[in-house]
Amino acid sequence: MTRIALVGIGKIALDQHVPAISASPDWELAATVSRQGRVDGVEGFTRIEDMLEARPDIGVVSLCLPPVPRFDVAQAALRAGRHVMLEKPPGATLAEVHALRDLARAQGVTLFATWHSREAHAVAAARRWLGDRRIESGRITWREDVRKWHPGQEWIFAAGGMGVFDPGINALSILTHILPEPVHLTGAELDFPANRDAPIAARLEMTQGITADFDFRQEGPQTWDMEFRTDRGHLALRMGGNLLEIDGQPAGGADTIMGEYPALYAQMARLLGENASDVDLSPMVLVADAFTLGRRVTVEPFAF
Amino acid sequence: MTRIALVGIGKIALDQHVPAISASPDWELAATVSRQGRVDGVEGFTRIEDMLEARPDIGVVSLCLPPVPRFDVAQAALRAGRHVMLEKPPGATLAEVHALRDLARAQGVTLFATWHSREAHAVAAARRWLGDRRIESGRITWREDVRKWHPGQEWIFAAGGMGVFDPGINALSILTHILPEPVHLTGAELDFPANRDAPIAARLEMTQGITADFDFRQEGPQTWDMEFRTDRGHLALRMGGNLLEIDGQPAGGADTIMGEYPALYAQMARLLGENASDVDLSPMVLVADAFTLGRRVTVEPFAF
Repeated sequence: MTRIALVGIGKIALDQHVPAISASPDWELAATVSRQGRVDGVEGFTRIEDMLEARPDIGVVSLCLPPVPRFDVAQAALRAGRHVMLEKPPGATLAEVHALRDLARAQGVTLFATWHSREAHAVAAARRWLGDRRIESGRITWREDVRKWHPGQEWIFAAGGMGVFDPGINALSILTHILPEPVHLTGAELDFPANRDAPIAARLEMTQGITADFDFRQEGPQTWDMEFRTDRGHLALRMGGNLLEIDGQPAGGADTIMGEYPALYAQMARLLGENASDVDLSPMVLVADAFTLGRRVTVEPFAF
Repeated sequence: MTRIALVGIGKIALDQHVPAISASPDWELAATVSRQGRVDGVEGFTRIEDMLEARPDIGVVSLCLPPVPRFDVAQAALRAGRHVMLEKPPGATLAEVHALRDLARAQGVTLFATWHSREAHAVAAARRWLGDRRIESGRITWREDVRKWHPGQEWIFAAGGMGVFDPGINALSILTHILPEPVHLTGAELDFPANRDAPIAARLEMTQGITADFDFRQEGPQTWDMEFRTDRGHLALRMGGNLLEIDGQPAGGADTIMGEYPALYAQMARLLGENASDVDLSPMVLVADAFTLGRRVTVEPFAF
């Protein structure tokens, strides 16, 4: 078992990372670093420097902090020669992730920028099916209730918090993984609440006739769907990449019985074994491009 | 002499590209493509497809279109096996430039994403001087009058036109070229006129203690300066990279008697000779990061 430290003990750490690590034969959760959060029975630190100093036996650090504070912690861990795994998005800016990638290379350690949605059950099957087809059009609908999934998380609407692109980048991480040819943006509209610095909704237009509709104000049923019309049939991925339909019929497609986060930790174990890194920034490039190219619309103020 | 076609005959083409090509022993301006612009004595087309079809003898295409329409033209030229030179910024989005880079590689042709300010007289000397020093802080002040330099160019304030980052990216192209270590953004504020979709001013905070102040509303004297405090002395680059001062004293630094655009065309000739490409997107990454991370401030409406 490889000892790992988890940094940022908030909702996503407790909901996903801790159970995934606990259930894995590869990993032992050996320490946490968090201002307030703790995990029972695990040594807790409040500062990354203290953990790096006190626990030279912990070779791997997994970060589930919000994007803005993430860089300094990742840099400290890499400089201390530790392997690093990053929750999505891998940073608040592209340039800082480029810097982390270069640092990991210089240190000879593994950096894994994770995209958990790529591990959803039907994604690999969708990628295979699309692999030799030509996309004629596509439609992504990613609508969820920010109050349900990010209760009171003010950082998500602060500058750099990415707003609705926090879930939207999950869709884009699937999209960039399954398409046989890369896409780019041709237009975007971003809805900013009058009292917030990050968008609450966005509509994207991309090449290959693909559109995306991201909305953080969806009450009732949640929607995480994408559909593609190709030269040979129609594919739909529903439930965030977990259900596959071909030409309107269920087509299963589960390649794994693991959940998304267990699959990420298994992948991290493989990367360590191969002394390799995996830093694909294409979903984040599309988000940065949407902010750069997008027309801004001011909408009504938002309160949690 | 290598035959070249110039696409987008507007202000920058007539002010800079045409004189640079005319004065060069390497190049012959063999055609133009533009909806309205023409160059006396040069065959003019209005559609890129027509030029590519009619003039197989023209192997190189230089693009001075605004960023949004640039991709389709660049793609058409690369697909037709032509070498391509792009005015800055190389596109409206990062992902589209990634696609052009991949296409150029697949076609075995040269792609040159130019940054004319890197060719200003004192930039190379500044880079050498900073090369073995440690930056303690830096300040970029880039303030110009949009009405003077972009008279009536509405596209610059449209979504994707980049607003004040159109000149600001010149500063960032110098910055990313002369610093011994890469920077990234840690904060940004962008001022959007109430009636426009691109910022008219921006204030950036970067690592290494570097700040930038970009403003498009500067009347009277124009300012394109950057100053750096290092562990061993103080450097200032003034007049858009053309004047060098070390510790407050003029230090010349002109490495070339060529202007910026003649130097770019000389560099394109070298790249063709080496069958190489030059696509450095680091200035554009900083701009995309500023849009992504930046806090938006609404300011008074702007009219040309």
